[in-house]
Amino acid sequence: MCRSKANEGAALIDRNPMKEKAYVSGVLLGAGLLLYLGRDLLTRSALLTWGLSFAGTTAVGILAMALYRVLAELRASRHELARKEAELNFAFEVQQALFPRQFPSKGGLEFAAVCLPARGISGDYYDVLQLSGGRVAFAVADISGKGISAAILMSNLHAVLRTLARTVWMPGQLCSQLNRHLYEVTQPAAKFATLFYGEWDEADRQLSYVNAGHPLPILLGSGHGRRLDRGGPPLGLFPDSEYQVGKVPLQPGDTLVVYSDGVTEAETPEGESFGEARLETLVAAHREKPLPEIQRAVLLAARDWSGKEIVDDMTLLLAKVTGPPALQ
Amino acid sequence: MCRSKANEGAALIDRNPMKEKAYVSGVLLGAGLLLYLGRDLLTRSALLTWGLSFAGTTAVGILAMALYRVLAELRASRHELARKEAELNFAFEVQQALFPRQFPSKGGLEFAAVCLPARGISGDYYDVLQLSGGRVAFAVADISGKGISAAILMSNLHAVLRTLARTVWMPGQLCSQLNRHLYEVTQPAAKFATLFYGEWDEADRQLSYVNAGHPLPILLGSGHGRRLDRGGPPLGLFPDSEYQVGKVPLQPGDTLVVYSDGVTEAETPEGESFGEARLETLVAAHREKPLPEIQRAVLLAARDWSGKEIVDDMTLLLAKVTGPPALQ
Repeated sequence: MCRSKANEGAALIDRNPMKEKAYVSGVLLGAGLLLYLGRDLLTRSALLTWGLSFAGTTAVGILAMALYRVLAELRASRHELARKEAELNFAFEVQQALFPRQFPSKGGLEFAAVCLPARGISGDYYDVLQLSGGRVAFAVADISGKGISAAILMSNLHAVLRTLARTVWMPGQLCSQLNRHLYEVTQPAAKFATLFYGEWDEADRQLSYVNAGHPLPILLGSGHGRRLDRGGPPLGLFPDSEYQVGKVPLQPGDTLVVYSDGVTEAETPEGESFGEARLETLVAAHREKPLPEIQRAVLLAARDWSGKEIVDDMTLLLAKVTGPPALQ
Repeated sequence: MCRSKANEGAALIDRNPMKEKAYVSGVLLGAGLLLYLGRDLLTRSALLTWGLSFAGTTAVGILAMALYRVLAELRASRHELARKEAELNFAFEVQQALFPRQFPSKGGLEFAAVCLPARGISGDYYDVLQLSGGRVAFAVADISGKGISAAILMSNLHAVLRTLARTVWMPGQLCSQLNRHLYEVTQPAAKFATLFYGEWDEADRQLSYVNAGHPLPILLGSGHGRRLDRGGPPLGLFPDSEYQVGKVPLQPGDTLVVYSDGVTEAETPEGESFGEARLETLVAAHREKPLPEIQRAVLLAARDWSGKEIVDDMTLLLAKVTGPPALQ
């Protein structure tokens, strides 16, 4: 993904071979015509002959030297670009290690999640954590902006959330603390993050969640059509935001689709968005399939939709309830 | 600091004007000599005259076109480099916001701290926090590696330390948790961090500290010569490192110098390090001055020592005990 960006510069240059041929032919034709018109002068005047030959040789020497110098500068510039690309690739690996390597196998929820960064490193974030008491927590966040600065804040948010999720048992309070931390470290840069945070308790088969300004997750199954919109403003915007906690009972087979706006706002070259409705229809059509297959289908569809390199980080987390239904 | 890096590529090119002049003079002299030797041929043979003029014109046309194309590629390459530099500059601002904006005014310690990154963004880290119970915590850390990947982990460490310092009251346990977190998120990248963490309690005028593989801080004043070496291995190397806590009583006027190895390992062009002894002598000589002046003196000396752009992040944190001595 990084590599294709490195070629972006070269692609800016006009490489139309027809135009080049026309240019060369034009120069040669013009030269031939001038020589034909001035043929008498050329053969008669020794001074003109000398002058022309000398001027030609000089021009070739000077142009050749200029070309040599510019080529050397181009090589140096590309070398510097390659160095930066290598650094970004390495940063990408470091960032990848922040994502969970495996998902909790106990707890009655199964997961599939992916983050496709637009620029090698990502401002999006997802995590799945096994907590004490059989609870499982998961989160998807989207840091404002893109690239390196978003990646730095993504790493910060990742660390606070992982640390707090293990000590703060109340999702609302957790988000308030996250918000305060992010507010402290993003002033005066005025950056922020949207976050969906869910905690699943297998004992009562309830999902407690907070939606901090994040695109509304899609629920398929028994709670179909329910909008997971309880919560508060994005994190980091105000010093003392408070967050309400929503609760949803879930049945086996229920599937939750949490995503970043990079998925739904993927645009056709004409500017039409992929949209939530299309995402929902697609997941519903594949609902009986294994989660990794649904994930693949969504990503392929969103990338085909935009028909070009993705311009915003795309994150998709699918969570499906497994196991027997709760006793009535 | 970023800007100077952008010019690094250009600096690689040989810009010796004497060499260029010699080259042009050589080409012209050679051309003149050839024309002089072939003067009879030139004036007698119309075909040769035509051929020479035509060849000269053609060569000029082709060279001019090649030059035009290479210049366009150079422009595109530099444009891409400038875009990346702008992104790094913005990331630098975001990272700067992670550093504390002001130091605690209560607690009986005064601080001066600075981090000079080698590449615009830094893998070094320092923080000073007012904790509950009148305690003040401070830390200096150095993430292995440099550049963007180190900055991403620096942000992670920053967040975990700030979050834990407010909930975990025991420095040893805090460092164990930090270590475990860093171990989890740096596998298999095998990166690590050295850290000095201090907690100052004004009530008993004791500094409790953990040194996790960090260069030994320098203590000036009543505890002079004492090495702050209690602790354990660097963070993130092993899954279950344990950390011992050192305790040092401090008197008013005592000054603690915590630094990253970028300061002491600054090298002359001949490879001689700035070193701890030089740092200690320098701080001791300025000890009666305000902390910001000592800080400035050290940084100037380290940069003069290396005599060139700094190659590793330099971090320096000075802490001085204020207020009346403890009652005996």
